[in-house]
Amino acid sequence: MLEGMADAMADAMADDAVRPPAGRPVEIVEVGPRDGLQNEATLLPTAAKVELIRRSLAAGVRRVEATSFVHPRLVPQMADAEAVMAAVRAPGFLDRAAEEAGQEIAPDDVRYIGLVLNPRGLTRALDAGVDEVNVVVVASDTFSRRNQNAGVEEMLDAADEIAAQARKAGVGVSVVISTAFGCPFEGEIDPDAVLAMARRSLAAGYDELAIADTIGVGVPAQVRALVEGIRAMDGRTPDGDPVRLRAHFHNTRNTGYANALAAVEAGVEVLDSSAGGIGGCPFAPAATGNIATEDLLYLLHRSGFTTGVDLGAMARTGTWVCGELGKETPALLGRAGTFPPA
Amino acid sequence: MLEGMADAMADAMADDAVRPPAGRPVEIVEVGPRDGLQNEATLLPTAAKVELIRRSLAAGVRRVEATSFVHPRLVPQMADAEAVMAAVRAPGFLDRAAEEAGQEIAPDDVRYIGLVLNPRGLTRALDAGVDEVNVVVVASDTFSRRNQNAGVEEMLDAADEIAAQARKAGVGVSVVISTAFGCPFEGEIDPDAVLAMARRSLAAGYDELAIADTIGVGVPAQVRALVEGIRAMDGRTPDGDPVRLRAHFHNTRNTGYANALAAVEAGVEVLDSSAGGIGGCPFAPAATGNIATEDLLYLLHRSGFTTGVDLGAMARTGTWVCGELGKETPALLGRAGTFPPA
Repeated sequence: MLEGMADAMADAMADDAVRPPAGRPVEIVEVGPRDGLQNEATLLPTAAKVELIRRSLAAGVRRVEATSFVHPRLVPQMADAEAVMAAVRAPGFLDRAAEEAGQEIAPDDVRYIGLVLNPRGLTRALDAGVDEVNVVVVASDTFSRRNQNAGVEEMLDAADEIAAQARKAGVGVSVVISTAFGCPFEGEIDPDAVLAMARRSLAAGYDELAIADTIGVGVPAQVRALVEGIRAMDGRTPDGDPVRLRAHFHNTRNTGYANALAAVEAGVEVLDSSAGGIGGCPFAPAATGNIATEDLLYLLHRSGFTTGVDLGAMARTGTWVCGELGKETPALLGRAGTFPPA
Repeated sequence: MLEGMADAMADAMADDAVRPPAGRPVEIVEVGPRDGLQNEATLLPTAAKVELIRRSLAAGVRRVEATSFVHPRLVPQMADAEAVMAAVRAPGFLDRAAEEAGQEIAPDDVRYIGLVLNPRGLTRALDAGVDEVNVVVVASDTFSRRNQNAGVEEMLDAADEIAAQARKAGVGVSVVISTAFGCPFEGEIDPDAVLAMARRSLAAGYDELAIADTIGVGVPAQVRALVEGIRAMDGRTPDGDPVRLRAHFHNTRNTGYANALAAVEAGVEVLDSSAGGIGGCPFAPAATGNIATEDLLYLLHRSGFTTGVDLGAMARTGTWVCGELGKETPALLGRAGTFPPA
């Protein structure tokens, strides 16, 4: 928070019930190891992926989308899913991250997420020892059929079945509504259809519900409408706790950071981002990827939110991983430096 | 505006008095010819600058920051200020832009702005036939002394004197409060000091007041606080009209677009941007420049604001001017394409 700005900001916010008080925590999910690397042409060796996870934990991240349990022929970037999980579960891994951080990391605080699309993937994810699984449903029927070979209804049923199995195994489960802000094939997506999907998934029982702007077309007005619509449903987990709300943005058209801020101001508690802004978009080959973790941290911290993640350490991690990929870093903090100057 | 989204958005906005109704016009000032090109290492020939202005007008822009009347030894990029103005004032220039646009351009609707820092610059600007001048005051005393060789108070007096002379000559005049969101030397800038400067300038009589995030460090909470503070002053021109509010953002740390949206949502009527996102920051040599006109148009149009400017034409202009500069286009719309797909 800016010194001397508190009063002016309090005045500015007084008539706005939607905006939260400054200092509210926002949880960051580092998705670089999965959504970032999955959309890069360069395949990183397993050791580099593990280092990306270790550096993220050392910077203060506690939830990581570590990998995806999909067929290696379809997504060769994720062919080493089991090896990545084995490495981050190996004795001494968290100790090395803690040593780099200069502070202890409680193993129970760290959550590794695996993306799964079908029962076979769930079995692999459970065998590999993930803490949580993410299942995906698609708001666009055309996108769903092209990408998952199944329509929206079929995917919703399949997701609920996977969730029930995951819950039986004692693993947390999140449902992600992808293409929630637009589809490369269908164009506009009716927000009422997204809200209907959210309502159905909330009734089925998830720990967390995420809305994803898969192709980076959304704007804050859409974010507010969807988040406020979903919040009004007051979703509960099977244990009766409030369902966490999470959002996932790509900066494909330079609206990603505005969307992320709109999401947390509207009540979203968890945001996805990737170190350095790695990743891309299969539907726009020249496009940029996920919103960058370090740039998101700058926006959130300067806006008065807390994350527990160190901006400088994430900026160095973003620059490092882009070096490994042999590309210029999409994130801007590493080039511009933080503010105020140290 | 998205089809079918109006109801959900109306619900989302119902409790938010600050947010304006959808469809409100926002005026775009194309600042690429001045703030953009001034911060590029590559000097463009006058003809290319004139083509940038012509293309912008053809795309629907009606206000252009055409050049700066400063000493050519200090800013060699602007040494051809008189030549640029002579070219855009030459017979046939607007006709060519209108032909490219496929619609008439009323000469009275087009406004060329010249930046001036001192009485000598004003004389040159008036002789060159600008429609408006921009004068700059600096919120940071250290920045002001380093950059303008004069402290804040001295600059405020000088600006008011230039404004009075410009008004006598029948030329519109805007005051820009630069480093309003942070200073590379002083760090945090007290928002109360910015508001005090705004109050003083409003009392002196300007047509427009702009707040500028010169080094791209601001976040929307700051934007809202400053804009709402200035709006509460209810500034009036010497003719008794409301003073227009304008904002100027750089995307140095990926907060520029969120700031722009926050500004118009808080009541700002005019936004600066540069075709392609050209420009830079003298204090962060690797940093990006102004927010890009085409990406700003995408955000504004999809958020329900109107600008009268064609996104596709500006995206082509942005890509073209970056080609002239021999650099990759910072704007993302030209790479990703607009949405929904045509």
